[in-house]
Amino acid sequence: MAEIKKIGVFTSGGDAPGMNAAIRAVVRTALYHNLEVAGIRRGYEGMIAGDFMEMDRKSVANIIQRGGTMLKTARSDQFRTPEGRKVAYDKLKAEGIDALVAIGGDGTFTGARVFGAEYDMPIVGMPGTIDNDLQGTDFTIGYDTAINTVIDAVDKIRDTAESHDRLFIVEVMGRDSGLIALRTGIAAGAEAIIIPETKTDIEALCARLEHSRRDKSSKIVMVAESGEAGSAFEVGRQIKERFPHYDTRISILGHIQRGGRPSCMDRVLASRMGVAAVEALLNNHRDEMIGIIHNEIAYTQFDHAIKHHQEINPNFLKIVEILSL
Amino acid sequence: MAEIKKIGVFTSGGDAPGMNAAIRAVVRTALYHNLEVAGIRRGYEGMIAGDFMEMDRKSVANIIQRGGTMLKTARSDQFRTPEGRKVAYDKLKAEGIDALVAIGGDGTFTGARVFGAEYDMPIVGMPGTIDNDLQGTDFTIGYDTAINTVIDAVDKIRDTAESHDRLFIVEVMGRDSGLIALRTGIAAGAEAIIIPETKTDIEALCARLEHSRRDKSSKIVMVAESGEAGSAFEVGRQIKERFPHYDTRISILGHIQRGGRPSCMDRVLASRMGVAAVEALLNNHRDEMIGIIHNEIAYTQFDHAIKHHQEINPNFLKIVEILSL
Amino acid sequence: MAEIKKIGVFTSGGDAPGMNAAIRAVVRTALYHNLEVAGIRRGYEGMIAGDFMEMDRKSVANIIQRGGTMLKTARSDQFRTPEGRKVAYDKLKAEGIDALVAIGGDGTFTGARVFGAEYDMPIVGMPGTIDNDLQGTDFTIGYDTAINTVIDAVDKIRDTAESHDRLFIVEVMGRDSGLIALRTGIAAGAEAIIIPETKTDIEALCARLEHSRRDKSSKIVMVAESGEAGSAFEVGRQIKERFPHYDTRISILGHIQRGGRPSCMDRVLASRMGVAAVEALLNNHRDEMIGIIHNEIAYTQFDHAIKHHQEINPNFLKIVEILSL
Amino acid sequence: MAEIKKIGVFTSGGDAPGMNAAIRAVVRTALYHNLEVAGIRRGYEGMIAGDFMEMDRKSVANIIQRGGTMLKTARSDQFRTPEGRKVAYDKLKAEGIDALVAIGGDGTFTGARVFGAEYDMPIVGMPGTIDNDLQGTDFTIGYDTAINTVIDAVDKIRDTAESHDRLFIVEVMGRDSGLIALRTGIAAGAEAIIIPETKTDIEALCARLEHSRRDKSSKIVMVAESGEAGSAFEVGRQIKERFPHYDTRISILGHIQRGGRPSCMDRVLASRMGVAAVEALLNNHRDEMIGIIHNEIAYTQFDHAIKHHQEINPNFLKIVEILSL
Repeated sequence: MAEIKKIGVFTSGGDAPGMNAAIRAVVRTALYHNLEVAGIRRGYEGMIAGDFMEMDRKSVANIIQRGGTMLKTARSDQFRTPEGRKVAYDKLKAEGIDALVAIGGDGTFTGARVFGAEYDMPIVGMPGTIDNDLQGTDFTIGYDTAINTVIDAVDKIRDTAESHDRLFIVEVMGRDSGLIALRTGIAAGAEAIIIPETKTDIEALCARLEHSRRDKSSKIVMVAESGEAGSAFEVGRQIKERFPHYDTRISILGHIQRGGRPSCMDRVLASRMGVAAVEALLNNHRDEMIGIIHNEIAYTQFDHAIKHHQEINPNFLKIVEILSL
Repeated sequence: MAEIKKIGVFTSGGDAPGMNAAIRAVVRTALYHNLEVAGIRRGYEGMIAGDFMEMDRKSVANIIQRGGTMLKTARSDQFRTPEGRKVAYDKLKAEGIDALVAIGGDGTFTGARVFGAEYDMPIVGMPGTIDNDLQGTDFTIGYDTAINTVIDAVDKIRDTAESHDRLFIVEVMGRDSGLIALRTGIAAGAEAIIIPETKTDIEALCARLEHSRRDKSSKIVMVAESGEAGSAFEVGRQIKERFPHYDTRISILGHIQRGGRPSCMDRVLASRMGVAAVEALLNNHRDEMIGIIHNEIAYTQFDHAIKHHQEINPNFLKIVEILSL
Repeated sequence: MAEIKKIGVFTSGGDAPGMNAAIRAVVRTALYHNLEVAGIRRGYEGMIAGDFMEMDRKSVANIIQRGGTMLKTARSDQFRTPEGRKVAYDKLKAEGIDALVAIGGDGTFTGARVFGAEYDMPIVGMPGTIDNDLQGTDFTIGYDTAINTVIDAVDKIRDTAESHDRLFIVEVMGRDSGLIALRTGIAAGAEAIIIPETKTDIEALCARLEHSRRDKSSKIVMVAESGEAGSAFEVGRQIKERFPHYDTRISILGHIQRGGRPSCMDRVLASRMGVAAVEALLNNHRDEMIGIIHNEIAYTQFDHAIKHHQEINPNFLKIVEILSL
Repeated sequence: MAEIKKIGVFTSGGDAPGMNAAIRAVVRTALYHNLEVAGIRRGYEGMIAGDFMEMDRKSVANIIQRGGTMLKTARSDQFRTPEGRKVAYDKLKAEGIDALVAIGGDGTFTGARVFGAEYDMPIVGMPGTIDNDLQGTDFTIGYDTAINTVIDAVDKIRDTAESHDRLFIVEVMGRDSGLIALRTGIAAGAEAIIIPETKTDIEALCARLEHSRRDKSSKIVMVAESGEAGSAFEVGRQIKERFPHYDTRISILGHIQRGGRPSCMDRVLASRMGVAAVEALLNNHRDEMIGIIHNEIAYTQFDHAIKHHQEINPNFLKIVEILSL
């Protein structure tokens, strides 16, 4: 196995708060171990285009607190083709890059897995996505910030809901996953949570809302964007049908959930994982995602990380039922 | 003119941050002048229902920092009828209330004007609305908080827009008024602002966006909810038609704009106006809205306050053009 | 063992964000299990004074997002005496309270342990302190919010430090514990962290600062309030002595660290623990603190919880060294 | 009068949020008018050192939302000497800079006034300081952000004060000016405000505090850093002397007041003033500070701007008295 002398780092897929902290940690750890580092702009697309930038300590100064990703991110159709990957490999070699740190979600690691199987290019991954939907880590970089952004928004909506005795149906992100909806639903004191992992009984939900109506002036229903009961608009339509007398409003939180200064936990997570990613490469790990499980660094094959989504803790649903009583 | 012994205070129309600070100021100023104060819940609706609560110093402790309105707010169809207003008057008299402070927007003052003309009930108003669309005051209570909420959200969206080289079309509130869109557009560094007060030339807008495309990776277009060019979705459709290669996204900020802890300026504004409102009643003002113009308390007849919306400062449009270059 | 019919809940010691979420969870879970609940104001002091309030679902509506504790908190010298505890017990029995949930830190549980040994009064505890210094739980309620408050403040200070090329020495809370300083130091990108758990070599620190001076315009040193190197002022004095040419400033963050809206994680933590606390009482647990270890509910004897503080993860110190390079 | 072809822009004195928005506005407006622009780093110090950077549209992209100043700021002893100013002038001419926009406070404008009198170098100023202590503008850039930062902090402190029934003495910035303390005192619901502009009667203050003690569990006293009654520690000492039974705490907010993302109003203010500053230079204004008075651009001679501080509105003090009742 050839010695690693120069690492390339890139972000790919949807951006997430803490990606900059992750880049900073990778760059500084590489320099600490006397490696060179190149930043690859716009993920796999930039790899194919040879869009590289040399990184030194100053390149990553004063970015730990910034949302988004300084290396930008993009989708790449070309990288899905063998020809695209060939070009990418040639560009990396021409640049002298002999190992990669990929920061992103399951699409990112799917690409990395294929690339790593085809070419002699050690790759490790760092989980950067607000969705928290990867196996092999308790938390992904960006999730903690996103759920804080959601409750900031819902706290504001609650002010209005309380003032007008309204029912709000709030839709949050989650790509077929209720993990954002579930924690934010508990934290926002939602009356109900609709997630794709469980069957939603709209009749039972309406009965619950009606029951609590005597005591509660405002109500929040939290909906994951791909909930099987349909989008927030569809849920709203069904509730309005049954309760035309409710003052019901819909709020789609949308893209604000991806941005913003990362939380303390996301910065620490990204820093720990970034150090571990570079050291993993030096210790001959490859095709693995770095995670933190029970507060210890964990290594999970890309294959495994992307196949198994995190499961919903059934106790959480019970907690919603008890506390929204 | 009978001496005032007991004041009623209420909030009406859409809620706005700072309404609680306004209620607090009215209550404490009334007590300072040895008046009694009743809180009227849910605006005109609660007036008709006799939904009153005695207010003392403690009733308004620890609320200056809270969004929404502790007295709640509602629309009232009944109050639009002479019969409804008769019931309201009788309920007020039965409670011993002999003057009113109404906190709200043009709907609130329209009701107050009619009521004040029909019955011997001194009323003064305080402008509480995020829209800033009342004549007779430089700023309404809630506007400053709302525009800060908007730029917090757009700063987050900018993170994502920068990371993905995207164009975002962001829709903000404003009820036929571009006042929120205009200031937040400047503050968020928007490339263009679409407001109902001016004709929007979509062709020119697209030419501008295309022109700046070489230098700018992300772009924000700020749209007032009732812009004559149509909603954000309609604007988005037209831009996508011309530039199918743009990665264009829509974000409707929605109800988060009404909530949240009031800004320092909104709290100070509400406090000053609340003191002035009670003292205006004691000095025999009636049917007037309290405002602050050029840092001095001003009094404007309800009639005038609701008829003339604030005008758009043409210099602001020029500033957008220069700075988004 | 007598059946539990009425639970008393109280907060004690320093306040922490999320205590209200904890109270809410205890109250609603008790009601869910058809128990009565009394709130005890001002901790042990209020217990002795018989300062109780009946709690129903509405008592805890709309408090999940609020900092501080609605039940207030206080120190009690009287409760340290057998006579004081006797009065407290009599007052509880007179009120019909037959079990307690105590929310607080090591002082709180020390009192609970003694009280539980003397009287037939089942008690379980919930860890509510920003310091995270209790054995038996990965995180205490309030810690996550506090560390986010710290980095919000340090991000602001960094703006000024960058603009002026200054060195800032920032003191954070921690009661003989570096747990706040350590995570926030990593997250704020601090150049150095001074904590009581490790010996600080001021000479080595100064050498480090001088070394990084060529590349970094601003520098942050994070100091735990009881760091063995002395307070921030003492550290500042020593640095100034060696580097009179540095523009060195001190900032003591102080009490802002205890307040504020709880973070999403703190609200979820408080909610989960509150449900578990009541159910623990019903399942005959007593004299135990509820914790969450590796995402599962854990039960730790008070004796054990208060004796062993959390240890510093040595990897974290290494991370600071690498990343602040 | 020679035609202006290249403008230099710099920030000087204490940094203030919105300085970056100001720099952006100056740069883009200059480019809009086909002028060249150089950024001068570290104020007068960098002018003497010839520390210049060419500015284009991209140089100021994505900075409108950032605290601090990208051009940095510094004090300069050298510029106080004729020799220093001679070097500065020579360096500016060598760079081809033929006019200046100075962003800062009274120290900045004092320097600009002297320099403008000695050399043929048109200068206009923009008020960038959190202190709001300049004549010739209703608000300075940074003031609105700073007062919001203060109330964020005091809202957190209030949580703790309420939970413990404490009296907090909070010291805010203000350089011999009570303007920050006054508005934030009203907005934070402070029981008393101590400012240098008025004589403080500690006896009367204590009587007030004692009087309100029956109804209020927490109390905040807001102190301007240079209040004639002494610092927060001195005020605290005097209050503790009289009321040893109070649980009294001191909080010095310190440098967090200078940093942070600028508020919407500060960004709009900086943008308007920046456009006006460049256009003023083109219209042959010199030795004037740009201000906004009653929502219109105003021009004030440096001499006048720095001599007369803003006066305290006596109504504000009355409002504190009424509302903290």
